[in-house]
Amino acid sequence: MSKINVEEAKAFRVDEHFQIADVDPSATPGLDGEDDIDEAFGHHDDDLENLQEMLYANSRADNAEAGSVLLVLQGMDTSGKGGIVRHVIGATMDLQGVKVRAFGAPTEEERAHDFLWRFEPHVPEPGMISVFDRSHYEDVLVQRVKQMAPPEEIERRYGAIVEWENKLVERGVKIIKIMPHISREFQAENLKERILREDKHWKYNPGDIDDRRLWSQYMAAYQVAMTRTSTDAAPWYCIPSDNKDYCRTVVKTLMYDALKSLNLSWPDADFDPEVELERLANS
Amino acid sequence: MSKINVEEAKAFRVDEHFQIADVDPSATPGLDGEDDIDEAFGHHDDDLENLQEMLYANSRADNAEAGSVLLVLQGMDTSGKGGIVRHVIGATMDLQGVKVRAFGAPTEEERAHDFLWRFEPHVPEPGMISVFDRSHYEDVLVQRVKQMAPPEEIERRYGAIVEWENKLVERGVKIIKIMPHISREFQAENLKERILREDKHWKYNPGDIDDRRLWSQYMAAYQVAMTRTSTDAAPWYCIPSDNKDYCRTVVKTLMYDALKSLNLSWPDADFDPEVELERLANS
Repeated sequence: MSKINVEEAKAFRVDEHFQIADVDPSATPGLDGEDDIDEAFGHHDDDLENLQEMLYANSRADNAEAGSVLLVLQGMDTSGKGGIVRHVIGATMDLQGVKVRAFGAPTEEERAHDFLWRFEPHVPEPGMISVFDRSHYEDVLVQRVKQMAPPEEIERRYGAIVEWENKLVERGVKIIKIMPHISREFQAENLKERILREDKHWKYNPGDIDDRRLWSQYMAAYQVAMTRTSTDAAPWYCIPSDNKDYCRTVVKTLMYDALKSLNLSWPDADFDPEVELERLANS
Repeated sequence: MSKINVEEAKAFRVDEHFQIADVDPSATPGLDGEDDIDEAFGHHDDDLENLQEMLYANSRADNAEAGSVLLVLQGMDTSGKGGIVRHVIGATMDLQGVKVRAFGAPTEEERAHDFLWRFEPHVPEPGMISVFDRSHYEDVLVQRVKQMAPPEEIERRYGAIVEWENKLVERGVKIIKIMPHISREFQAENLKERILREDKHWKYNPGDIDDRRLWSQYMAAYQVAMTRTSTDAAPWYCIPSDNKDYCRTVVKTLMYDALKSLNLSWPDADFDPEVELERLANS
């Protein structure tokens, strides 16, 4: 049976030798053709469903030690962030245990605070999964590319992010950071579809073209941001995504590994089953 | 092809002649046997997915006229509220456009306000779907059965609920109220499973037996609450639910009808496609 195993998925991890230019967005390593990808796509679904139910059960049982998962999605327009939310998270998990938060430009109030302030309330509580659709990395990506903050402030932020994420990890939050990496050519196809199709118009923003014109500057900003903030505690994965199902398959595998690593078990009963069976029989 | 059509689903609507004792929780009208139910279960999935995407597109386009949907789930323990969230809502809809809120006992702060106060912030915004897993009806159900509020206050609440819901409907909120109706015998089976199975313990609460002992009082409270608050604007549906897939199939059909009735269309493009194609070509 075709699948992406955990080791293969972790091969996309960003380390100190990482060069974004070395990643071929159209590659599908480990899987050969659509049938293979289709088969691998569903491989971890049952495990994801079961593990997430167990995680959520711990949330409901107020187990403060349960751990939680934060999935950060950060990529260029049309790279498939929304599709990951829908087809990886939505399709396999109980939405009662998942919170998805899309981050746009900060409000005036948010801008008046440190850049991390607006993200803190959305850190997952024990037993929960949070997904950031765009994230605190906007503050070192678009803000760097468009020079929305002074260079020394951008510089400060890399360290601040690592420190903040380390603190979250100490609190039991498992962090996975994903860059779905698409080619400039694939983005052109996607944008064209959004411009032409009535049912895709709502996903299109003329500003997308402005960002597209800054493609190489964005790649440089991703290169710096990912290498400086990919830590053992909170690694980055740069995943080829011209084939969206391939990327989603890899993300499923990484989510599976993250949930496994929490060493979950079903919460202990806070009642005596014998007693309750008796009460039920007499009710 | 087996299905439940909209008229069949609406036959479960609570009207002035409604008697809860007349509803057989084990019936599956319109569908005959598991195969039939299985087939009908998936009948509206594509429509639900597409309509909800269109609804959410309007939310993203800030269309204040888009309308929204509020699904209220209120039933006895183990009646399948969580399963509706998972298998009706989660399985067909993009969780970015859905908010699920489970309501437990009110906090001290909440008790200091009018009973409706804590629900108002969770009314869906235009383009969104909200699900209440338990709801403002707790205040005329458990509170009536357990005499947690004086009779005249309970009495006042029926009218207050109708008034509040009417106001929401005027604001464009489509309200569907579901009581998944199970038999006392079926509940015993479900509770036994929760007591015995390690992976179900987290769903069990010894208080469930206390409520079970008050079954007939609860049925009387549901009878009054549903008949007094089932309006054209915000109807109640009492759906046989000993067969959970049957109930879910009916709820899917009602959700389909609600989404259809919003007369949605894709938001207009706020850009000129010709211009944007040109910009894309030159980018």
